[in-house]
Amino acid sequence: MDYILKIDCNDEKGLILRVSEIVFKHGLNYVSTSEFVDHENSRFYMRAVVVGQVNTIEFQNTLSAYLPSDSVIFFESIKKKDIVILATKENHCLGDLLIKHSSKDLNANILAIIANHDTLRPLSDKFDIPFTCISTDGLDRVEHEKLVLKELEKYKFDYMVLAKYMRILSPDFVKRYPKKIINIHHSFLPAFIGANPYKQAYERGVKIIGATAHFVTDDLDEGPIITQDVIRVNHEMNWKDMQKAGRDVEKVVLSNALELVFDERVFVYDNKTVIF
Amino acid sequence: MDYILKIDCNDEKGLILRVSEIVFKHGLNYVSTSEFVDHENSRFYMRAVVVGQVNTIEFQNTLSAYLPSDSVIFFESIKKKDIVILATKENHCLGDLLIKHSSKDLNANILAIIANHDTLRPLSDKFDIPFTCISTDGLDRVEHEKLVLKELEKYKFDYMVLAKYMRILSPDFVKRYPKKIINIHHSFLPAFIGANPYKQAYERGVKIIGATAHFVTDDLDEGPIITQDVIRVNHEMNWKDMQKAGRDVEKVVLSNALELVFDERVFVYDNKTVIF
Amino acid sequence: MDYILKIDCNDEKGLILRVSEIVFKHGLNYVSTSEFVDHENSRFYMRAVVVGQVNTIEFQNTLSAYLPSDSVIFFESIKKKDIVILATKENHCLGDLLIKHSSKDLNANILAIIANHDTLRPLSDKFDIPFTCISTDGLDRVEHEKLVLKELEKYKFDYMVLAKYMRILSPDFVKRYPKKIINIHHSFLPAFIGANPYKQAYERGVKIIGATAHFVTDDLDEGPIITQDVIRVNHEMNWKDMQKAGRDVEKVVLSNALELVFDERVFVYDNKTVIF
Amino acid sequence: MDYILKIDCNDEKGLILRVSEIVFKHGLNYVSTSEFVDHENSRFYMRAVVVGQVNTIEFQNTLSAYLPSDSVIFFESIKKKDIVILATKENHCLGDLLIKHSSKDLNANILAIIANHDTLRPLSDKFDIPFTCISTDGLDRVEHEKLVLKELEKYKFDYMVLAKYMRILSPDFVKRYPKKIINIHHSFLPAFIGANPYKQAYERGVKIIGATAHFVTDDLDEGPIITQDVIRVNHEMNWKDMQKAGRDVEKVVLSNALELVFDERVFVYDNKTVIF
Repeated sequence: MDYILKIDCNDEKGLILRVSEIVFKHGLNYVSTSEFVDHENSRFYMRAVVVGQVNTIEFQNTLSAYLPSDSVIFFESIKKKDIVILATKENHCLGDLLIKHSSKDLNANILAIIANHDTLRPLSDKFDIPFTCISTDGLDRVEHEKLVLKELEKYKFDYMVLAKYMRILSPDFVKRYPKKIINIHHSFLPAFIGANPYKQAYERGVKIIGATAHFVTDDLDEGPIITQDVIRVNHEMNWKDMQKAGRDVEKVVLSNALELVFDERVFVYDNKTVIF
Repeated sequence: MDYILKIDCNDEKGLILRVSEIVFKHGLNYVSTSEFVDHENSRFYMRAVVVGQVNTIEFQNTLSAYLPSDSVIFFESIKKKDIVILATKENHCLGDLLIKHSSKDLNANILAIIANHDTLRPLSDKFDIPFTCISTDGLDRVEHEKLVLKELEKYKFDYMVLAKYMRILSPDFVKRYPKKIINIHHSFLPAFIGANPYKQAYERGVKIIGATAHFVTDDLDEGPIITQDVIRVNHEMNWKDMQKAGRDVEKVVLSNALELVFDERVFVYDNKTVIF
Repeated sequence: MDYILKIDCNDEKGLILRVSEIVFKHGLNYVSTSEFVDHENSRFYMRAVVVGQVNTIEFQNTLSAYLPSDSVIFFESIKKKDIVILATKENHCLGDLLIKHSSKDLNANILAIIANHDTLRPLSDKFDIPFTCISTDGLDRVEHEKLVLKELEKYKFDYMVLAKYMRILSPDFVKRYPKKIINIHHSFLPAFIGANPYKQAYERGVKIIGATAHFVTDDLDEGPIITQDVIRVNHEMNWKDMQKAGRDVEKVVLSNALELVFDERVFVYDNKTVIF
Repeated sequence: MDYILKIDCNDEKGLILRVSEIVFKHGLNYVSTSEFVDHENSRFYMRAVVVGQVNTIEFQNTLSAYLPSDSVIFFESIKKKDIVILATKENHCLGDLLIKHSSKDLNANILAIIANHDTLRPLSDKFDIPFTCISTDGLDRVEHEKLVLKELEKYKFDYMVLAKYMRILSPDFVKRYPKKIINIHHSFLPAFIGANPYKQAYERGVKIIGATAHFVTDDLDEGPIITQDVIRVNHEMNWKDMQKAGRDVEKVVLSNALELVFDERVFVYDNKTVIF
């Protein structure tokens, strides 16, 4: 059986040796390993895929006793993640995930789709994924989020994916799901934070636009960046042309970021990510 | 003989027809042509390379009488531009231009190099380009710029190239050379405006960094963008690694932008560029 | 009404003038224009979007009389293209086109899908597009293509799109649809022509892989290239990882190429394309 | 003191543990580590930067006794490499290395430049690097290489860099310097092997061109690839335009590859590279 091991702790001498001893003593063998030390913050990161047969709780406890007390240890057999998707009206990111899901190319089960408009219901129905529309009509942000939270409570999910969900989540909402909400922002952050980045890009006259997948934190568009990509634009394109061209980048960037997260390749520390 | 013709005016019916008639009547033939209409601002742009033999002033006057009164017309035989380079301490952009200059791959003559440090004198000397160091020691911005202006007055140049000149030019200085000063900014504008963009990028945890070549206007780092490019960075890189990696992008972006400008492929309108 | 005008002919003096005169006389106005002269082959290319109201046949005839006798003239009001898609088992390119089709982001109507396996029937059914499986079981190439041709004859289509159709088309088949069949090849042509390019790429140890959209001609993987793109790969990836990573590039490259073709921005001459 | 440790051997259980024990027992501490197992060939690769104070020969011997008998172990304190550059007439790659060398941005000492033309002598002289022209006039390949080898013997170098050296080296020559000769090929290999790749690219009508840095082996343009990059081209460019545009890619790709090699980040196995 294959397991993923992730460790993140204050850097000390002999960490790899200690981990390797525990791994060896449990009859596990490394399939792949990666380490990184953030020397500025004196922080150690390690990800390993190991093969063997072991009691995961016992292994984790043994390792924990051997490592610095602040260590964050993740140890699980490799498995698909469970996700809930939040969306609004645009179909490109959701559609891409549904197509990948239907051919088992998405390393996750889509449990449900929640949207603030009914536009994407026919698409969701085609792929037999439960779809719930929670309209914002007549509701303030707190009331609307209360309904969304109630719906979310029905599902046991690992990650919440904002696939072009065009609502700003309140700090209270975000706090409930630390490092669990992934958003695709339709600009090359930190350029063009906020509303309509394509219009901002057009007005600034940039020659390259992009998209950014990031974890959602309290600060709008300021969470830890997972991955980014760009495409060239030119003077012939108005902002709607840029928006259209940007959609392919958005969906690919989101999909790449999810793959990294679902494979447990991403560490979050402060406002940054370490990605193996 | 080959000429470059550039026209930029309010859009009207029949502009291409009118230009083509004048071109034809003067026995000129199009080698290449490009047009663009900015429909938002109802503005027409045209660039053509034409071949033949003509009195440039007479041609320009005839054309002028035929086109809208606001027309900006440029008509010249193709020739190398004359430039002055401003620099500080870093050698990568200046070095790249000097190497290209020495093998005739730069479409310009470098008349002189002016720097606020003496660091690059040995490099400039190797290539026999007049080098003047105007130190800022004991001078305020106005006093220093006065000396720079005095030095600049010695040369009849088409463009001033800021090849990592790490001083902010005053609005008074900039106003003297409208659309004539080209800067390389070491970030993917409008991200990381201002000082030490690599440090800003590192601290934000971005996964892509870039460089931007632009015309200098009153607003710091806000002038019309000519060209941009990016490279990927990762968590293993501190800001000095990013700075080092960024240098190759900076010099290539600056060199590409200059080639476009020297070939008369760039139009500036408001805060944007049209590039053929 | 908006029309697209495309002209391709031997280069002569005064072509733009002549076209502009005819355009002007018919009360048409240029919305946008692009020209290119291939000086090596002395060939002129022009694409224009014009606005007005005109009898298209009369306009085309007038223009034709005015231009060199070898001129190829296309003049039509702007409209969606009709396409038939050929596929095999992989769902990423087909899925991408169906999602775009369903949100009107594809500039074409998908009339039908023909496949040599039944794998993609459920996907096609979800989007209510007629799906026909023509298995190759027990058939040689000629017999199989005969059945495909019979099915194709039911539809009046502008383009045939090979969305990962894993069969080689015979020269006889291809000859019936000159410049009408568009294929996505899963490599950065001309590298890795033929079978399993990802395996070839892996074995060669390249650091970048790509995809190529091209018109299909007699020569396998040798037709005129429309567009290409690449992504970086590394030593950690085996050929199946490369194949997976390549899928996002394949679908985006195919989609970009189709947009260019459907917008009538592509000229084919010999084995090359001119793209405005 | 910082050391670099590189290990490449058949994969076995417990390799990281064994290495870590030896590292720990010698009072060394990991600054950074990377491992990779090529499961297809069952081969283990490890690179580590370690800090401490140790007798390098004793350390290497101890480690060697502890690891599989086929292990290739490299252990040295971090230092600049010594290189000899071979060139012909083009100045862009050589110029880039000289500029970087002069500002200590090249992690190597340039001991000498050997060329088969005298064109680059003035450039080399500017930077005070010994330059030797060994003309091919009147000599066959064997005779010419004999003279080059004689010149090379004067220098104790770690790597030989072919900075656009436009001669094909004979297998006999190459065999003397296994994994020591690095070439920049002006195409995106394996596309356009052989002479004038830009002309080949132009004639094929590709939309992207590139450059490839690789170790030189017996097979022309077939050695292990270190790094590659690409740029977009279009129908307006003839092959000389592509060549000019390609130069910036060539020099950046070569420079990036050298940095990886000089930092001891590259392993060569069969015809591939593992790059940390």
